[in-house]
Amino acid sequence: MEESNLSVVLHKVNDLRLENTAILEPGKGEVQLRIARVGICGSDITLWKHGCIGELKVTNPFTLGHETSGIVSKLGEGVTNLKVGDRVAIEPVTTCGRCDKCKNGRYNLCSKLAIFGLPPYNGGLTRYHVHGADLCYKLPDNISLEEGALMEPLSVTIHAARRAGITLGSRVLICGAGTLGLLSVLVAKSYGASQVCVMDLNESRLRLAKSMGADVILVPKNNGARELADEIEQCMNGKPTISLECSGAPLCVQSSIYATDSGGCVLCIGLGPDDVTIPLVDAVLREVDVKGILAYAHCYPIALALLKPGTIDVKQIITHEFKLEQSLEAFELVNRKEGIKVMINCE
Amino acid sequence: MEESNLSVVLHKVNDLRLENTAILEPGKGEVQLRIARVGICGSDITLWKHGCIGELKVTNPFTLGHETSGIVSKLGEGVTNLKVGDRVAIEPVTTCGRCDKCKNGRYNLCSKLAIFGLPPYNGGLTRYHVHGADLCYKLPDNISLEEGALMEPLSVTIHAARRAGITLGSRVLICGAGTLGLLSVLVAKSYGASQVCVMDLNESRLRLAKSMGADVILVPKNNGARELADEIEQCMNGKPTISLECSGAPLCVQSSIYATDSGGCVLCIGLGPDDVTIPLVDAVLREVDVKGILAYAHCYPIALALLKPGTIDVKQIITHEFKLEQSLEAFELVNRKEGIKVMINCE
Amino acid sequence: MEESNLSVVLHKVNDLRLENTAILEPGKGEVQLRIARVGICGSDITLWKHGCIGELKVTNPFTLGHETSGIVSKLGEGVTNLKVGDRVAIEPVTTCGRCDKCKNGRYNLCSKLAIFGLPPYNGGLTRYHVHGADLCYKLPDNISLEEGALMEPLSVTIHAARRAGITLGSRVLICGAGTLGLLSVLVAKSYGASQVCVMDLNESRLRLAKSMGADVILVPKNNGARELADEIEQCMNGKPTISLECSGAPLCVQSSIYATDSGGCVLCIGLGPDDVTIPLVDAVLREVDVKGILAYAHCYPIALALLKPGTIDVKQIITHEFKLEQSLEAFELVNRKEGIKVMINCE
Amino acid sequence: MEESNLSVVLHKVNDLRLENTAILEPGKGEVQLRIARVGICGSDITLWKHGCIGELKVTNPFTLGHETSGIVSKLGEGVTNLKVGDRVAIEPVTTCGRCDKCKNGRYNLCSKLAIFGLPPYNGGLTRYHVHGADLCYKLPDNISLEEGALMEPLSVTIHAARRAGITLGSRVLICGAGTLGLLSVLVAKSYGASQVCVMDLNESRLRLAKSMGADVILVPKNNGARELADEIEQCMNGKPTISLECSGAPLCVQSSIYATDSGGCVLCIGLGPDDVTIPLVDAVLREVDVKGILAYAHCYPIALALLKPGTIDVKQIITHEFKLEQSLEAFELVNRKEGIKVMINCE
Repeated sequence: MEESNLSVVLHKVNDLRLENTAILEPGKGEVQLRIARVGICGSDITLWKHGCIGELKVTNPFTLGHETSGIVSKLGEGVTNLKVGDRVAIEPVTTCGRCDKCKNGRYNLCSKLAIFGLPPYNGGLTRYHVHGADLCYKLPDNISLEEGALMEPLSVTIHAARRAGITLGSRVLICGAGTLGLLSVLVAKSYGASQVCVMDLNESRLRLAKSMGADVILVPKNNGARELADEIEQCMNGKPTISLECSGAPLCVQSSIYATDSGGCVLCIGLGPDDVTIPLVDAVLREVDVKGILAYAHCYPIALALLKPGTIDVKQIITHEFKLEQSLEAFELVNRKEGIKVMINCE
Repeated sequence: MEESNLSVVLHKVNDLRLENTAILEPGKGEVQLRIARVGICGSDITLWKHGCIGELKVTNPFTLGHETSGIVSKLGEGVTNLKVGDRVAIEPVTTCGRCDKCKNGRYNLCSKLAIFGLPPYNGGLTRYHVHGADLCYKLPDNISLEEGALMEPLSVTIHAARRAGITLGSRVLICGAGTLGLLSVLVAKSYGASQVCVMDLNESRLRLAKSMGADVILVPKNNGARELADEIEQCMNGKPTISLECSGAPLCVQSSIYATDSGGCVLCIGLGPDDVTIPLVDAVLREVDVKGILAYAHCYPIALALLKPGTIDVKQIITHEFKLEQSLEAFELVNRKEGIKVMINCE
Repeated sequence: MEESNLSVVLHKVNDLRLENTAILEPGKGEVQLRIARVGICGSDITLWKHGCIGELKVTNPFTLGHETSGIVSKLGEGVTNLKVGDRVAIEPVTTCGRCDKCKNGRYNLCSKLAIFGLPPYNGGLTRYHVHGADLCYKLPDNISLEEGALMEPLSVTIHAARRAGITLGSRVLICGAGTLGLLSVLVAKSYGASQVCVMDLNESRLRLAKSMGADVILVPKNNGARELADEIEQCMNGKPTISLECSGAPLCVQSSIYATDSGGCVLCIGLGPDDVTIPLVDAVLREVDVKGILAYAHCYPIALALLKPGTIDVKQIITHEFKLEQSLEAFELVNRKEGIKVMINCE
Repeated sequence: MEESNLSVVLHKVNDLRLENTAILEPGKGEVQLRIARVGICGSDITLWKHGCIGELKVTNPFTLGHETSGIVSKLGEGVTNLKVGDRVAIEPVTTCGRCDKCKNGRYNLCSKLAIFGLPPYNGGLTRYHVHGADLCYKLPDNISLEEGALMEPLSVTIHAARRAGITLGSRVLICGAGTLGLLSVLVAKSYGASQVCVMDLNESRLRLAKSMGADVILVPKNNGARELADEIEQCMNGKPTISLECSGAPLCVQSSIYATDSGGCVLCIGLGPDDVTIPLVDAVLREVDVKGILAYAHCYPIALALLKPGTIDVKQIITHEFKLEQSLEAFELVNRKEGIKVMINCE
């Protein structure tokens, strides 16, 4: 029975299949995991529908899924930090550990970075997966497997908030109320932001943002960047000190720059077109830094610390849950932009 | 005799005049200065020929000149840090001292910022000028009045290097070998940069860059941003960790982003068109920060400390000197892009 | 009637008097305030009973009180940020605005620093006081005058937490559950600390610490520094990453150093003997930084932002309130170490 | 012939022997090195004469030597960054690569830190040694093997300068003109220090400090900490902003704290008694941070970049060179405190 290892395999653009793959045995320092929950990410859809994200291209079939929790089913040689039955969140980022970036604590920029679930590395939308034991974070009893899977996007927003410098008293604009925008509300507040404004066209998402802690919400009326910046300032009763741009829309990048206070930061989380026209002179002369992020560097422990007290509720963003067998249906739903976070139950 | 106060007054776009202005008496906390040397800045030309820089517009006649040194001629009430006859460098930046930005040490972002020599504030291209005593930095005997005037652009590059994070071992690309590019060579080296590459189309400027400490120089052959980035990397035998963009040319901004190492910074000093198309996804996913600067915050003391030992020679960039009476001729020369730094002797 | 200006004046060590002082008129940029609430600080008691704090000595009679809120009663020339009747918190720190420290954003280190209520500057334990308008922070309707007075010690803990680097996921030890220790609990949590442990000998104070958000509390049993460090680690289930030492007791400084995780920080808020023996080799080889604070630099706006949403309750620490006329009685009570924060109502 | 592997083995306190040890073969990712030069460090003498440094104790015989350069003699499996014959500097620090400290870029604080040449790990005072290939930094042609060995103490001072925040315009006090004090002069200047003062009782060392770039030197006359601080300020014509304490003497730690400017840092490199009495209230109220260092985190690449241009001459500090066979004689000389850096030639 256990030999069947149903997996969501992306063969090439527009060719996503449910099929069986091999069950691997854990090597030295590795564990075999029975996968529990996997969140579907916007990047999964982009790979499926476009065959690439920036330079990253689908060339060979691989298993999707990088927002993953699981249960340890077998221990490889020398693993001492885990035991069979442990519930874990899986950090998908593997690095060389030896280059400048790794040694300086920015391992997400390692030139040998491998993210499981992004091509060509097999990910977590499967029954059994083998992973480095040191990348599996044991979940305490009061953290659910759904929350374990959500630790991945949560880590993205933690890394973003940290790079943007959100701290006590920050006034934060968040553009886009999808998974990352909504988790950013929780994270910005946890870093001490005194005011959080979320902007989106979708009013139901904004209501959720409000219930997750946003102080003000904004359905923008303008589509000129300066006018939109004015709307933001009016809504926030002043300029935000930091903007987290989660939409990728050039208009939002531009209006974030105009809106952000001198000396502040626009941190781009969302990805849009490769090239974007920005009001560079305005950013330069007001010392508004434009920054981005790639994944995260050692944010899982922070995510764990943030979830442990039970004071924040990340599960609110889960709108749908499907069985692994229903994955293609789930992908179609996400592609239609229904729901916010769609979770696959692989158990 | 002293009543004549010859000044270079910009009346409106394309209307620059040599004329006499009033000699003012110093108020409380102020000094009257006999102006010694004034460097002509690219922004002076832009104001003259375009009537504006970004939002900054020429509306009323004002005296140009913000790269200035002078000699104290009269003391206002309560001035104790200076005496008549002191040779000083003049920091042109006046601030409110009370707002968030001022109190947090970023006074260059003060909303009441006044830069003397930029509209509508009278500057230093004159015989006698009154200035806040606390903004006049006394020059030690071994620092010349020319160097005192050059402390202004030097402070710009210090602020840029500091915001960019140049430190021991940095590999620095400098785009553009004008005043700011050339001073950036000295400053980057002083902050500990291990490799400095200067890129420009003008070979004689590059020779000067080399003699000022650049390790490698580059006359670019390509005009595609990615190709240019490849040229830079080949020339530097690797990616720069930090780029100081002094040209304002969109192509240079773009290729700086492509060329800069992951986790690095592109610091924009030069100003080009208001809106620039940048490879945002590349910058975001490689965490290359795009930053700018406005003037400087408390860099004059650092500039003074840098000049004092006599180990760096900023005067190399002075290619021409004119008398105050010849200022219009000097402006024409700078407008023809002849020379590098043109210095007006007001004595 | 209004001419009577009852004030708490410290004449010399052990000579504290209630007497009338002159009512001053506000000068340029100043406001006259009707004082509302003043908290008694441990340093007030030290000045009264010892006549000095470190280098700071009582030489001439002066009015005590630096934790103050008030209501604007008259406007000086040129004041535009306030109007008569405004309720304000009073930042007691006056600086030169021109020195290196001021210009670099560390104005609390200004060599001309004047703190009102510390000798020789008259403070707020009075009916009418004149203060710089830019140091008066208008309180929104939902912040009480008691909270306004508490913004002073709150700013101390904000400055401490910021200098210590408390952020999301920090594990924080707080030694001493007095005013600053208790406010530190709120502030550490607001900066994102995931675990806060408070240590004190007084169990009722610890109960208050718990109700203010401390995760664990500790009544130490040992009086050896290493043994105490072990107790702390056991109580916190690991080493704290940051310790805020609010007691000033050498034993607590020492055990904080031993207890704090490698790469962490011991931030000293409390003051004890001038010279303290510390385990320097242990601190050095584990890169545990030992830092201190003097007052705060521009923390009032952060304190205001923290209080505004109504999510933290600083008033819990107020155990007693006295009328201005009863001040000597209040000082005696604080000197007997009864209560936590004793508030004087000057209205 | 090659089987003889003469090594300097410390058996126990006061029991240092020259004897043959086994020649090892390189494993996966390792290289075998023919050792070239090894500097004798003060810690080698401490281990020999006291049997311990803090918690670090000699329990079993081990080969001394951690300031080492060598020539690659054999490649282990999978090594691609080096080839036989490459001249290399050897970073002695081995870490787990997986703990919080490693992942955050502070690998020198790894709880599994192993420093070769410190007990119980065999070091470089031998003919052949096997080491991780990623810890061997290839020397370019213009860097000598002596310089390669000196990259170890150079990395210590780079880490110290970086943690202390030395930058353009810093005024730096260096206490102690031994190996680390003298290299600190070069490093402080390279980071941009505008003034460096070196203090020592030994005038010939101070002359060397001067020739290496110190601006002022000081033979202290006082042995009271405050008086000594006054001497320093007089000598430097003001307070240093940063002090590097390389002597370990409590008097120097104390006077460094008194001497250092408010807001500055005393960085302890030298180790003295475990417990030191410091003027804590003075440090706290002037926000003078007291910090220490353990080894270095990824400083070898910076050391290499610093040496490459040939602009600094670290070899000046080498006063003696001995053959490996003469090592015991060399250790006796260092123990008598003759010379500065004594280098063993193992070829």
